[in-house]
Amino acid sequence: MVLHSLLTLAKAVSGLRATFGEDRVSTDEEELRRHGFSEWSSINIDTLPVAIAYPRTTEEVSVIAQACTRYKIPIVPYSGGSSVEGNFSAPYGGICIDFAFMDQVLAVHEDDLDVVVQPGIGWMDLNAQIQKSGLFFPVDPGPSAMIGGMVGTSCSGTNAVRYGTMKENVVNLTVVLADGTIIKTRHRPRKSAAGYNLTGLLVGSEGTLGIVTEITLKLQPIPATTSVGLIPFVSVRDAASAASEIIKTGIQVGALEIMDDVSMDVVNRAGFTDRKWDVVPTMFIKFAGSNESTSEAIKLVQSITTRHRGGNVEFATTPEEQHELWSARKQALWSMLALRKGDEEVWSTDVAVPLSRLPDIIEVSKKEMDELGLFAAVLGHIGDGNFHESIMFDGSDPEERRKVEGCVKRMVTRAIEMEGTCTGEHAIGIGKKGHLVEELGFDTILVMQKLKASLDPLWIMNPGKIFDHPREDRIVGH
Amino acid sequence: MVLHSLLTLAKAVSGLRATFGEDRVSTDEEELRRHGFSEWSSINIDTLPVAIAYPRTTEEVSVIAQACTRYKIPIVPYSGGSSVEGNFSAPYGGICIDFAFMDQVLAVHEDDLDVVVQPGIGWMDLNAQIQKSGLFFPVDPGPSAMIGGMVGTSCSGTNAVRYGTMKENVVNLTVVLADGTIIKTRHRPRKSAAGYNLTGLLVGSEGTLGIVTEITLKLQPIPATTSVGLIPFVSVRDAASAASEIIKTGIQVGALEIMDDVSMDVVNRAGFTDRKWDVVPTMFIKFAGSNESTSEAIKLVQSITTRHRGGNVEFATTPEEQHELWSARKQALWSMLALRKGDEEVWSTDVAVPLSRLPDIIEVSKKEMDELGLFAAVLGHIGDGNFHESIMFDGSDPEERRKVEGCVKRMVTRAIEMEGTCTGEHAIGIGKKGHLVEELGFDTILVMQKLKASLDPLWIMNPGKIFDHPREDRIVGH
Repeated sequence: MVLHSLLTLAKAVSGLRATFGEDRVSTDEEELRRHGFSEWSSINIDTLPVAIAYPRTTEEVSVIAQACTRYKIPIVPYSGGSSVEGNFSAPYGGICIDFAFMDQVLAVHEDDLDVVVQPGIGWMDLNAQIQKSGLFFPVDPGPSAMIGGMVGTSCSGTNAVRYGTMKENVVNLTVVLADGTIIKTRHRPRKSAAGYNLTGLLVGSEGTLGIVTEITLKLQPIPATTSVGLIPFVSVRDAASAASEIIKTGIQVGALEIMDDVSMDVVNRAGFTDRKWDVVPTMFIKFAGSNESTSEAIKLVQSITTRHRGGNVEFATTPEEQHELWSARKQALWSMLALRKGDEEVWSTDVAVPLSRLPDIIEVSKKEMDELGLFAAVLGHIGDGNFHESIMFDGSDPEERRKVEGCVKRMVTRAIEMEGTCTGEHAIGIGKKGHLVEELGFDTILVMQKLKASLDPLWIMNPGKIFDHPREDRIVGH
Repeated sequence: MVLHSLLTLAKAVSGLRATFGEDRVSTDEEELRRHGFSEWSSINIDTLPVAIAYPRTTEEVSVIAQACTRYKIPIVPYSGGSSVEGNFSAPYGGICIDFAFMDQVLAVHEDDLDVVVQPGIGWMDLNAQIQKSGLFFPVDPGPSAMIGGMVGTSCSGTNAVRYGTMKENVVNLTVVLADGTIIKTRHRPRKSAAGYNLTGLLVGSEGTLGIVTEITLKLQPIPATTSVGLIPFVSVRDAASAASEIIKTGIQVGALEIMDDVSMDVVNRAGFTDRKWDVVPTMFIKFAGSNESTSEAIKLVQSITTRHRGGNVEFATTPEEQHELWSARKQALWSMLALRKGDEEVWSTDVAVPLSRLPDIIEVSKKEMDELGLFAAVLGHIGDGNFHESIMFDGSDPEERRKVEGCVKRMVTRAIEMEGTCTGEHAIGIGKKGHLVEELGFDTILVMQKLKASLDPLWIMNPGKIFDHPREDRIVGH
């Protein structure tokens, strides 16, 4: 439970300022708003954090945690700010920790295939910095995501079908607990069976159990050559059916993505890529290896896609064309955001289902979205049974918002009814707390609440995310 | 804390007998000994469970848990009984739950690439039952391991370098908590970011947080063809160096194993395979795909191994020969056990280190083992930086046991000093509790203890494993 008054808040802030200096503990209105609100988010709330702290070291984070424990003030961690479910909003105010000054690569262990980083580094920046080593970090969410938030949300991206999600790619974490204690979850072997898998518990816990200040990540050798192709389809259902079959044959793909006709149109209209694309449901497929060495796999893929009314595979012939083909996929959400005018907002959400249910849910969900009469796109990581809906709507029209919300909620409920999950890679935040209960039931949520209470008895670590306090009605101070 | 008396024990046992019938709640001395002692284990203790219960359903396990909570009696889960660190021994007595009657495949979802099973099924039996589907479960520890124990220890095996360990291959779990509550950790999508990763926390928790009664496992398409080859080396150090380099190039191997000269000799002497093997350090390598389709990879491997004084790759030409080659590796520990005479015991243990440290630790550890003057072998999953020592010694000679113990402890401490782990795949049990503290420190252990206490406040779930109760001195009743 979060119990603090304006007086204790002021004490905490002035205490931290005395330690870190004025400029590293900001209460500037613009700063607060930048950290507590996001135009990309499907949900925003009325409250903001009361101060933003900018620590430089794990020890400084520990000092902040000790102060927040002493004064019973919430702590909200912040890195890239690109999550979409209100994961970093501040429903109970409190102090936001921005990792802007903790953005370093601390060690590259080329021969161990791992790297130690701070939470404030972006995954693209990380890969640029280590490129010379011939290694890369394969988890590829939105371009602006940073490692800290990626750990918190257990995100993934297009490479997950080949390399796994964050869960499979974090070796160990340094974590500051609510009371300021600093722990390390594991040593640095790629494989371990030593005690509770704290790393696996912390990944995806959205800062509600502890604050991650240092992360060891698994690296992979950069494939010497990569082939990227795209295949046009008659319908998204056909594309999804073909994708399920490709995965089932065991053909090893580097990525397997789909964009519907609307998504392709969005990319054309936003003009982020040089090329203009056919406005049809399109499968994007990636192989590690040259077109020659993967020719057997490509032939097999083509025979499957043809059975599902897919057109011919078009392969990129140059690295530039490859980049162009893939960027159409990677730019999809950003393209949509770029097209907004005036009060328009984009509701972007994701679900995942068992592979065999993907064609059903994609078909029904697209039909429902089309019926909204709005600009709405489906795209996704279909190799993992994971897909996204993005719907543009007039944010100033409560009726339209209500309709969009209904459409999204039905899609999520449908996924849950198919034994799927309310989120494949965006996590719960504030936006999907209700759906999490719907998915797992109160007894499972109660286990999560007990685990949190055992490490965070004052309930100050990013409170109000994933689930509420079991006695939420007794919370005071916001 | 475990607090029970003989009187409450008797009440609990007679209560369970009234519910389940005499034959499903055994107090037979032989039964107790079979469940509380193991000749494969590196550690055995003086106490045994007081009764063995044989439930048939999750609901029956819940009834047992409720009784044990009511009477404050420990619960120790048991399936294959092949773990080696005392993971299923009963230091505080209590009731052992044997999953012998919960050994079914509950559902095969071929199109979703998953299977739902009970804890008492062996992984080899599972694969035999689902073979027709063209799918298989890739985690391959010792032949007699069962899924329940495999979840508990987060084990792995030779396929881990390609498909990951148990952590990466469990989709969800049905779990009976200490008070009898039944929860499911997740739905059935292959990917999820929905709330705490309870699946990941439970895997490897050795029954100390809850009793796993149902498991959904990821399946993989059986590769159409597989190539298996072996390469002789001058020294284990050379083989380990070559292995690290192979992994770093990104060549995708199906498995990458090493056996030292002694291990090869063991297999010859036990006579479990038809063929006689050269008694030299040997690398075993597996590729998914035919010798032709993987010829590029094979050429690359050969060029690397040659630089490390490796001989020519010898590939199996028939499936029978393939089976023969691989079984030499799989039979290694069993071969050693088969060679025991009289009071001889085998101490088998494992560690894992960052890849680059593998040549160092293998070389030093083998040298130290050789100096013991005993029959001692090194083998391991070197693609993961994970290796095993097996030492045969006279169990009736306290001095010899002390020497072996010292040698093993130094090897584990060495691994920890190299930022490695005290166990790559055998888990902690009773045998490695001290090393776990050495590896992670008291603050990290305290986090584990708090998590356990939050779900098991009476401390009745497999007590004395992984770590002790924080106030161990107050424990009564054993």
